[in-house]
Amino acid sequence: MAPESAVPGSCYFYYPRPVYIVGARDEGRGTVNFAPVTWATPLSSDPPLFGVCLSPTTYSHQLVVKTGEFTVSLLTHEHAALAEALGKLSGRETDKVKALELELHAGEALATPFLAVAYVAAECLLLERHHVGDQTLVVGEVQRIHTAADAFDGAGVLDIERFRPLLYLGSSRYATTARGTQPSKKAR
Amino acid sequence: MAPESAVPGSCYFYYPRPVYIVGARDEGRGTVNFAPVTWATPLSSDPPLFGVCLSPTTYSHQLVVKTGEFTVSLLTHEHAALAEALGKLSGRETDKVKALELELHAGEALATPFLAVAYVAAECLLLERHHVGDQTLVVGEVQRIHTAADAFDGAGVLDIERFRPLLYLGSSRYATTARGTQPSKKAR
Repeated sequence: MAPESAVPGSCYFYYPRPVYIVGARDEGRGTVNFAPVTWATPLSSDPPLFGVCLSPTTYSHQLVVKTGEFTVSLLTHEHAALAEALGKLSGRETDKVKALELELHAGEALATPFLAVAYVAAECLLLERHHVGDQTLVVGEVQRIHTAADAFDGAGVLDIERFRPLLYLGSSRYATTARGTQPSKKAR
Repeated sequence: MAPESAVPGSCYFYYPRPVYIVGARDEGRGTVNFAPVTWATPLSSDPPLFGVCLSPTTYSHQLVVKTGEFTVSLLTHEHAALAEALGKLSGRETDKVKALELELHAGEALATPFLAVAYVAAECLLLERHHVGDQTLVVGEVQRIHTAADAFDGAGVLDIERFRPLLYLGSSRYATTARGTQPSKKAR
């Protein structure tokens, strides 16, 4: 490449990344809030841990800390508008499930539901929190996974021909996946 | 979806994810090691922090802790075989740069180089470490970013028509990006 030097924050160097829709219950209101998060990562295989960055000022953060659990729902790219709407609406002011007429599925291991439209979802039990810069990394132990039929093959790999995941590029722009070069089929 | 319940670890629910090639110097040998990592995430905007999961048993972990810095290089999908080779070779036994004839660019803010073939790379100063499950999350403060000319637009968004990033699906399978549905163009 012809490198150009730039300051941190001048570009979203780390995107594209999948959109993880974080669900958390508001026990007081009897509602569930959903918010899109792309700053998230698996953190451990054994135990199976998944971490999500939440600003400590957010409603989602407040709910996750209070209930000690959250769900993560993944969507195909046709649902970009849903992800965008979930990010734009304020959960403190609006019951997003009602406003967007979202269908939910009940959790199996935990009490927090996930989005029925998701092709895969995970139930996570809050294990610990780490304050990192301006965010809190909430670490959940995965209790149970729910998948659409035939979404993953025998090796546990997503069938991206049938389920084309929603990816975020930054600045309210989205993408999806396509078949790429495989290591065995083309030399470096 | 028609949900099927599954145990954690039965599928890679969190993929596809970008492949981040982590570079770290071996000061004793005078070499640089590169290893592919997909368990990584931005962690904070201000300060700009980026976190990478490394098993504490790995050579990369040892080098990052010793030098206090690392680089992150991102590749287009044509380089799937390179990412795969970097993951298969042992850095302790093999100088991967020599074995794979890799061209490097010198860092500007730090002493650790990055891959010349990368479309974007970031120089990270180790700020802190968090032990999470079977991994260590190494947290770097981004010091400088290097991009291929015109890779990112004025909003900082990657031009995925020209630079099609390498994504990992699990089980040595890779993908890339494609244009997807945009929120403004199609209703939910």
